[in-house]
Amino acid sequence: MIDYSSTIDEIYEIILAEENIGKAAWYIPELANVNPDQFGVHLSCLDGQGYGIGDYKTKFSIQSISKVLSLSLAYKMLGDQIWERVGVEPSGNPFNSLIQLETDLGIPRNPLINGGAMVICDLLFSHLQKPIEDYLAFIRSICGNDTINYSAEIAASEKSVGYRNVALCNFIKSFGNIKNDPTAVLDFYFYMCSIEMTCEELSKTFLFLVHDGKMPTTQEEILTPSKSKRINAIMQTCGFYDESGEFSFRVGLPGKSGVGGGILALHPQKYCISVWSPKLNQKGNSYRGMKFLELFTTKTESSIF
Amino acid sequence: MIDYSSTIDEIYEIILAEENIGKAAWYIPELANVNPDQFGVHLSCLDGQGYGIGDYKTKFSIQSISKVLSLSLAYKMLGDQIWERVGVEPSGNPFNSLIQLETDLGIPRNPLINGGAMVICDLLFSHLQKPIEDYLAFIRSICGNDTINYSAEIAASEKSVGYRNVALCNFIKSFGNIKNDPTAVLDFYFYMCSIEMTCEELSKTFLFLVHDGKMPTTQEEILTPSKSKRINAIMQTCGFYDESGEFSFRVGLPGKSGVGGGILALHPQKYCISVWSPKLNQKGNSYRGMKFLELFTTKTESSIF
Amino acid sequence: MIDYSSTIDEIYEIILAEENIGKAAWYIPELANVNPDQFGVHLSCLDGQGYGIGDYKTKFSIQSISKVLSLSLAYKMLGDQIWERVGVEPSGNPFNSLIQLETDLGIPRNPLINGGAMVICDLLFSHLQKPIEDYLAFIRSICGNDTINYSAEIAASEKSVGYRNVALCNFIKSFGNIKNDPTAVLDFYFYMCSIEMTCEELSKTFLFLVHDGKMPTTQEEILTPSKSKRINAIMQTCGFYDESGEFSFRVGLPGKSGVGGGILALHPQKYCISVWSPKLNQKGNSYRGMKFLELFTTKTESSIF
Amino acid sequence: MIDYSSTIDEIYEIILAEENIGKAAWYIPELANVNPDQFGVHLSCLDGQGYGIGDYKTKFSIQSISKVLSLSLAYKMLGDQIWERVGVEPSGNPFNSLIQLETDLGIPRNPLINGGAMVICDLLFSHLQKPIEDYLAFIRSICGNDTINYSAEIAASEKSVGYRNVALCNFIKSFGNIKNDPTAVLDFYFYMCSIEMTCEELSKTFLFLVHDGKMPTTQEEILTPSKSKRINAIMQTCGFYDESGEFSFRVGLPGKSGVGGGILALHPQKYCISVWSPKLNQKGNSYRGMKFLELFTTKTESSIF
Repeated sequence: MIDYSSTIDEIYEIILAEENIGKAAWYIPELANVNPDQFGVHLSCLDGQGYGIGDYKTKFSIQSISKVLSLSLAYKMLGDQIWERVGVEPSGNPFNSLIQLETDLGIPRNPLINGGAMVICDLLFSHLQKPIEDYLAFIRSICGNDTINYSAEIAASEKSVGYRNVALCNFIKSFGNIKNDPTAVLDFYFYMCSIEMTCEELSKTFLFLVHDGKMPTTQEEILTPSKSKRINAIMQTCGFYDESGEFSFRVGLPGKSGVGGGILALHPQKYCISVWSPKLNQKGNSYRGMKFLELFTTKTESSIF
Repeated sequence: MIDYSSTIDEIYEIILAEENIGKAAWYIPELANVNPDQFGVHLSCLDGQGYGIGDYKTKFSIQSISKVLSLSLAYKMLGDQIWERVGVEPSGNPFNSLIQLETDLGIPRNPLINGGAMVICDLLFSHLQKPIEDYLAFIRSICGNDTINYSAEIAASEKSVGYRNVALCNFIKSFGNIKNDPTAVLDFYFYMCSIEMTCEELSKTFLFLVHDGKMPTTQEEILTPSKSKRINAIMQTCGFYDESGEFSFRVGLPGKSGVGGGILALHPQKYCISVWSPKLNQKGNSYRGMKFLELFTTKTESSIF
Repeated sequence: MIDYSSTIDEIYEIILAEENIGKAAWYIPELANVNPDQFGVHLSCLDGQGYGIGDYKTKFSIQSISKVLSLSLAYKMLGDQIWERVGVEPSGNPFNSLIQLETDLGIPRNPLINGGAMVICDLLFSHLQKPIEDYLAFIRSICGNDTINYSAEIAASEKSVGYRNVALCNFIKSFGNIKNDPTAVLDFYFYMCSIEMTCEELSKTFLFLVHDGKMPTTQEEILTPSKSKRINAIMQTCGFYDESGEFSFRVGLPGKSGVGGGILALHPQKYCISVWSPKLNQKGNSYRGMKFLELFTTKTESSIF
Repeated sequence: MIDYSSTIDEIYEIILAEENIGKAAWYIPELANVNPDQFGVHLSCLDGQGYGIGDYKTKFSIQSISKVLSLSLAYKMLGDQIWERVGVEPSGNPFNSLIQLETDLGIPRNPLINGGAMVICDLLFSHLQKPIEDYLAFIRSICGNDTINYSAEIAASEKSVGYRNVALCNFIKSFGNIKNDPTAVLDFYFYMCSIEMTCEELSKTFLFLVHDGKMPTTQEEILTPSKSKRINAIMQTCGFYDESGEFSFRVGLPGKSGVGGGILALHPQKYCISVWSPKLNQKGNSYRGMKFLELFTTKTESSIF
């Protein structure tokens, strides 16, 4: 294992000593109740070793980070036909913007913004027998952990206030790019986002994207090397909504954030790292998470650039 | 040297045998006159070795690829203050779109779209004694080649039809984000874009970004490692206008295209590759260039992801 | 009565002889079933006289024309406070566009586009005991006709395909500018649009706006003169979506169109005229209706300008 | 003459007693120097009578009000072919917005926003022998006053800071919808806007639009009745930029504002009224002018609706 443990300790202390700015996702009741000062980090390597600090064994809602996994499953099952329904371009707009959909006639810019993730959910909904069960089984298998689960409370909580997402899904449906009933697709979408993991579980789950699509433990192929690289490329350009360029500029790794305060980032062939701290900056990304990862790739000189 | 020469030969033959689709930049009279079937490729490595095929010793107008060099010079001279005047986010829009400037109050999304490059030109214009001469001297020094030059004909040709660019520059000026006279800034901008190089010269010139900011021959530092990585990150997310995501997805390297039909891409710590073929796809990027590089990173498995 | 009957006959014949271009509202199943060649006209004067030709005694779905009546009721009941929730500016965009709502933070541009009419429905929903019954009672009273009714089939038909409207209503709700449950507001909205009238009933119903807000028969005040004039002003600038300027330019009267193929126009102090022909032009307004009214005000020189 | 003089006196006193809010057009140096507390009103009737109060005999820069006159001249000379180059729809956007031009491919929404007025200038430039002299001669003839003139100082002042207008004109040129050299068209445009008149001259000049296109003194036809009505219709829907709906709603007359603080409004067949007060509201229209006219049509009940 590359020994980054002392660097992780050092940066963790620096950030813990600084003011924790921002606001946890206030608009989703269940997320607003989370203690906003929790802070965990975990790094996993291909050889199975790992290192964690702080609240890295506490479950949190991974939210949009889950979109990379639903994309992976759809790409694995359906191949390049998925790109007829969703693009691979950064949007230059907030995560839930409807503006571009109107000019783009219902084709979301990429699968990591809300609209794009709904199209992916719609694809899975059409091709999975039991979408909610089957998606969970997929995640459990790549994480190698049967305790991973949804939070029905968080799914319900998001649904209760998710007017913008209802708008998005029905808007795409009006262009014909959602094939199933929007209410059913949204139910699956809210479930998909409600997956809970610890930092440790999260960084282990994504190791297949560090390893050219193969599970590092069993060498089982989840995705071909080409598909795995392409998902990393999409995370690089689109993983942080309208802060994707900034993350690429400051951190220099493919990654994905969630409004639960988690960030996942990875260095192909090297490692996967997760940070969790609920307070979000103005773009909706974890304040401490962004800061931690910028310091981490700077000090370890491990940006991919 | 990593031996990619046979792969380059092989791909060159494949592409040469296929139809050459698209249209050379018809709207700039001098560029429209170039023989559109020319096709050259050159790869340069850190150890000084290189390999070229086709028209790799023919000069062509590097156009927007030059924006990476003007950005490098401004970043070197002025440091992070340049980011107060221009962003680092992909635009999600064509290269010369004015829409976002209106909502973003005159701050271009990134320095590789036209508006952003004009702001960089304005910064250089304020801080260089003789902008046109000094910029050329900078390029000659990093290329180690005193024959590199502007094409006054192409600069004049672009100026004669550059109404959209006049609009862009005056629009930014109206927000106060161009400090000098727009006509003078535009003159410098058109000169900056008119630099001519061969594929060979181009791939050598950019080796400093492969080598953490240092010239591979003299080890002289052009940019700090951090600045060098950040310019690569901007190329990754913003180098191909509204096809940046697609390039990242298909090719997986930081790069930059120009309407002259050139594309420059690089793999940090490994190599720099340039392709030139004047016919452009609908997004304004070289049709054969995009295709060549997709095949190249696929066959050599050398995407950064 | 001003004698326009021979002019109406003459224009009716001219238009009947010409090709009937366009397409009836295909996207609402129940409307798509209407015989598209029906064509009726009716003019009503303040003195109670009237003149009709063609299918002027056939019921049709008045659709968005109903929005002027729901606006009138809300303005009557709640006064100028309604303008805190909706604007009075033309939108410059199609009837169901979501773009402006995003930049305008959920305040629709005017009460005659879909989003604005939903906000009016929401206001009525909050202030009427039984919104659906009470709105119908209001229309029956100003029309002086107890047979006016909704079409439950058309309301259900629109609801079954109204994804764009579901999107609009939930989008406005996400900004907090819908106070009630979006599903309940939409139900009321679809009912409100499903009112059926004949040309004769329609032109009689709107006479109060010709008569400074008073019923011409009983002199009962529905709206104050100032409010009546202001509703006419809004019809003038906003009554035809992104063809409002064109209607104002060609016809020169305040008016309102519906996707059922009806158009209502009026000349303050003079007359009220309705035309019905189901085939719509590309902007969603009755092809023959627009043409009839242009010829009518040209021949009678009765534009308000 | 309809006797509105006492009403005019009364409203003038009311408004004079209230705070004069807003800011004179600060961005044009010569306009910023004007005494902002000047306040004049003049009403002209078809029978030649008139009534003025306050600074109604002081010259001011009519600015965009001049666009109605250049439109009249172009419509008179070239007829309906002008509508191939410019629309008649309200824009829903500020006077100098570039956003819509991009989606509308260089066709400005209407001839009363800056871009549209430039296209009209371009048309006149192509068809007049000496555009600047000929346009002035036209205005002098309809005003019946040979002392009307441009202000070369104001034209030069606007040009010196008119970056947004340079952007607009070159942007339209880039779509091919400006046929002449943009610099020459802009020179004419700035001259056209620099016409100076008193309130008295202004209200007399526009009487032909009250009189179905004929000069009230000589009965000479400037425009046909149909063209005259259509220009009034365009003023009604587009005369006040993104406050056109508000003006229509509050005042209920066709009209046009200028950043010099002038507003012209007219009642077909009745009167023409001009108000001048340099302080502008946030939409760029005279604060006192808007207020005066709202009170005027309310008290005289002379809205066209």
